[in-house]
Amino acid sequence: MKLINLVGERFKEKPSDCVVDSHAFMVRGGYIKAVANGIYSSYMPLRRVTKKIEAILREEMDRIDGQEVQFPVVMPASLWQESGRYESIDNSLCRFKDRNGAPMVLGMTHEEAAVQLVREYGATYNRYPFMIYQIQTKFRDEARPRAGLIRVREFTMKDAYSFHTSQADLEKYYAECYKAYQRIFARAGIPETVVVQSDSGMMGGSISHEYMLLTPIGEDSIAICADCDYRANMEAAESIVENTRDEVSAPLEKVATPDMHTIEDVCNFLGGDAVKSVKAVVYQKNMDDSYVIVFIRGDLDVNETKLTNFLGENIHPAVITEESGIKAGFIGPVNLDAAAKPLVLFDNSIKDTNNMVAGANEVDFHYKGLDMTRDCPSAEYHDFAKIVDGGVCPHCGKRSITVSRGIEVGNIFQLGTKYTKTMGMTFTDENGESHYPIMGCYGIGVGRLAASVCEAHHDDYGPIWPVTIAPWQAHLCCMKSTDADTHAVADKLYDDLKRAGVEVIYDDRKVSAGVMFSDADLLGVPVRVIVSPRNLKENVCEVVTRDKSVSKKVPVEGTVSAVKELIAELTKVYEDAADRF
Amino acid sequence: MKLINLVGERFKEKPSDCVVDSHAFMVRGGYIKAVANGIYSSYMPLRRVTKKIEAILREEMDRIDGQEVQFPVVMPASLWQESGRYESIDNSLCRFKDRNGAPMVLGMTHEEAAVQLVREYGATYNRYPFMIYQIQTKFRDEARPRAGLIRVREFTMKDAYSFHTSQADLEKYYAECYKAYQRIFARAGIPETVVVQSDSGMMGGSISHEYMLLTPIGEDSIAICADCDYRANMEAAESIVENTRDEVSAPLEKVATPDMHTIEDVCNFLGGDAVKSVKAVVYQKNMDDSYVIVFIRGDLDVNETKLTNFLGENIHPAVITEESGIKAGFIGPVNLDAAAKPLVLFDNSIKDTNNMVAGANEVDFHYKGLDMTRDCPSAEYHDFAKIVDGGVCPHCGKRSITVSRGIEVGNIFQLGTKYTKTMGMTFTDENGESHYPIMGCYGIGVGRLAASVCEAHHDDYGPIWPVTIAPWQAHLCCMKSTDADTHAVADKLYDDLKRAGVEVIYDDRKVSAGVMFSDADLLGVPVRVIVSPRNLKENVCEVVTRDKSVSKKVPVEGTVSAVKELIAELTKVYEDAADRF
Repeated sequence: MKLINLVGERFKEKPSDCVVDSHAFMVRGGYIKAVANGIYSSYMPLRRVTKKIEAILREEMDRIDGQEVQFPVVMPASLWQESGRYESIDNSLCRFKDRNGAPMVLGMTHEEAAVQLVREYGATYNRYPFMIYQIQTKFRDEARPRAGLIRVREFTMKDAYSFHTSQADLEKYYAECYKAYQRIFARAGIPETVVVQSDSGMMGGSISHEYMLLTPIGEDSIAICADCDYRANMEAAESIVENTRDEVSAPLEKVATPDMHTIEDVCNFLGGDAVKSVKAVVYQKNMDDSYVIVFIRGDLDVNETKLTNFLGENIHPAVITEESGIKAGFIGPVNLDAAAKPLVLFDNSIKDTNNMVAGANEVDFHYKGLDMTRDCPSAEYHDFAKIVDGGVCPHCGKRSITVSRGIEVGNIFQLGTKYTKTMGMTFTDENGESHYPIMGCYGIGVGRLAASVCEAHHDDYGPIWPVTIAPWQAHLCCMKSTDADTHAVADKLYDDLKRAGVEVIYDDRKVSAGVMFSDADLLGVPVRVIVSPRNLKENVCEVVTRDKSVSKKVPVEGTVSAVKELIAELTKVYEDAADRF
Repeated sequence: MKLINLVGERFKEKPSDCVVDSHAFMVRGGYIKAVANGIYSSYMPLRRVTKKIEAILREEMDRIDGQEVQFPVVMPASLWQESGRYESIDNSLCRFKDRNGAPMVLGMTHEEAAVQLVREYGATYNRYPFMIYQIQTKFRDEARPRAGLIRVREFTMKDAYSFHTSQADLEKYYAECYKAYQRIFARAGIPETVVVQSDSGMMGGSISHEYMLLTPIGEDSIAICADCDYRANMEAAESIVENTRDEVSAPLEKVATPDMHTIEDVCNFLGGDAVKSVKAVVYQKNMDDSYVIVFIRGDLDVNETKLTNFLGENIHPAVITEESGIKAGFIGPVNLDAAAKPLVLFDNSIKDTNNMVAGANEVDFHYKGLDMTRDCPSAEYHDFAKIVDGGVCPHCGKRSITVSRGIEVGNIFQLGTKYTKTMGMTFTDENGESHYPIMGCYGIGVGRLAASVCEAHHDDYGPIWPVTIAPWQAHLCCMKSTDADTHAVADKLYDDLKRAGVEVIYDDRKVSAGVMFSDADLLGVPVRVIVSPRNLKENVCEVVTRDKSVSKKVPVEGTVSAVKELIAELTKVYEDAADRF
């Protein structure tokens, strides 16, 4: 491919709407163009990257006996009504009617379609286990698409579904897939990806893991223990709190706290610390707008995912009306008698505490001297708090938790029988008895993976693509293409490289070295070959890597083999990293 | 791959809803499963076929300098409003609103997206010509999906878009693409595909061609001249009529034709032939329901595509109301004075005719002795008639037209500036002047191509896949797998074939020869290898082709090389067919 023919424009200025590097480089390098909010077209360089990622995904899925299938993008709502998700998923599920008025959805995931495809096939035990996967377009109507390809509305995803006759068999396969995913990320150039426990969310099921690329621009928070191998998504991380109790409990006393609406105001006024206060956080259930109040220690925050899982339904931050009888800013666990009859929940962090400050459920008044054990004897406590930096590791018990940001590049779920049960898929066992198959599902977003690799591997000038997924393997630059001799050598080298099976992009434009190199940096091709009049005086070409780790001069006639060797060496690094798993 | 692990079921009974062979085989062979009307999931065997077709498409598109890109499935309506197609396309274009109420469409074709992607890039002449293509899911909300994968609502399509600075340059590229398409169909196993002139329909533009696989189950009618190379879709075929005029024109005379509403009734009654009658065919414009009456010779039919093109808008068969003043069953060109003021059109077939029968615009009366020249002096004549079997070839003028049925497996269009003009894409030429680029577009449906190949190449028992797109190259059957020696030989052969790079499906199930062979027939793999105790006594394997053209016994140790040779021979047939273009 000659660069002069490459459709797409490259430019220097960072677009103002790009807040993360991968987004900026993909726009500046002629990889993508926005079509609508969170919807992109890809130019050839990105399509070449995604095709290579797709090839890796296929190889690794086939390696664990996956069978590639294809589900439709457009599905009848009836399929999603069977599983119950047509009703339970919010408007990120795109619903519409076809020409005959039949309700349809756009696939954002394909558990229902997978069960539909194999429901009859999987009728007897001896056909298990099996795994089917596809690589297909998905649409998730995200409220807030962001960061270029990191969070989009339309994306290509590899999604896989396995079916088993026992939990033990699922776990065995899950472990294989766990490793296959490590191999995938290693081969795609981010072996540094970490695996964390996660919350299963709308997918259902119990055990699940996310593969996280740690980066400050990630939108997930991950709790990592410095002392053991505990790693969990903040959403799923258990919060361990060591509550302390003063020796003497002061009596409960109501104090005037005029115009103090936040727990900080009150603590400042009463001279206490947030740790010695009980904060009320109020939500409403999406279903009926009924109120839910969570009492939690003043220095902690509610983990809404844990709360949602506890309730079994979705919630949103409350809008507190006058009629509710809830006294916003003055809510406390004692004498809480609001007309709206809120559901009251207590976080573990206030269990057994005393001498606490809390709202008195009366405007401009708080209590001090609150003893939870004495004053709220019937409270039941659960884990609703967000884990914090410096917190206690739920696994080893040390105060060794750090919270980092990460991008979720893949996830695996043990789904259990959620879908097979609701959709009536059964198999007959050796004894003629009927059971629901147990499922696992396994997803990787192709575009997000490409963008994540770009986040992990770039410099100030552009992406540094791993050779395994780079749009081309070699970038041939003909400096001073106006010089006929130089151009002739470069032309021949271009032909020779192609003939040797090297994927090469050839820049012989009549442009300055500055333009040529900045374009090459934006395309991020790992091996660069520079032909110039000065080099040719010594009968050499320069062969350099995009990451500057290699830079050497090789004889013109040895250039092709030098390039091939270098590509093989670079490839081996990633294959070796994958083979560690 | 072991057949015992292949997800999907094969069965003998033809499903009652399958009216064409490819549909029945794809259901019976475990290739597809319906998810909704015209929406299918694919099992592994079909996915393997479509991946091979996709690989051929990529190779041939790359060969004519195509650059693979990707457009979104979901697009903002605004993009389609730019081209005017948001309004002009009927409800086969799926329209819906996203979570923010923004109107969106599902891509059924991507001219708009293509222009959007390259609008800025193509600003100067020296960047032309270029071609971009994608292989992507499309959704067309067909009113009548039919025949399995032949006409579906959701499908995968290769769509390509070329951009040029002159009509001459477009034509040069169009000719290249014309050949590339012939190569594609040859490589996919249907070199017998014919190219026909077609109507451009909703795509706009003037010249276009369709690639047709002739088969009785096709839904297109194609006019083919037996004497020259004229081939056209019926929709686009010019109807040449040799009108005859009697020497003497009888006077115009009104006759009572009580209760005769069809032209046949009237002709029978008056003792004439349909050729001597003027038939009225009535439509209404979709836009405003205004009436359009076409007068045409009684033995001919109106070609609605030609009529639509003439009118520049869509029409539907009329519902004639009493208020319209149109006397259904008695409509004629003389004294037609209806309240609804219909648009009146005349087909070439009645030009200069005399002694004709026609309606008298009065209930229960017709005219006879109608002389179009004398009685309708101001009529203007156009070509609205369908070409007929045995009709005159518009190219060589002989009465040599036959009308055949065909499946459209691909199409190419010279679009002109329809999209660049409406969407404001321009380029600056050498003199600094601004012009609209000229476009071509080129489509092939992947699933329909697979089904068409199956239609063209099957026997009573299943598909006979060309080796170039077959799900596997070799099908290894271990007869009597209960016999340990036989099983051991077959197992080793399976390993050896895989190691030799042969794509092999291995059936070692403990089933009867009948089940084994009927399953193999349904999978349609071109080379079959049979290992059986009887053969092993002679130390041979049977190697047979699915189409029965080859059947031989080869020594066990020579089987792998015999299979490889056979695959190479079979492949060469298609590659040679492609190289003829």
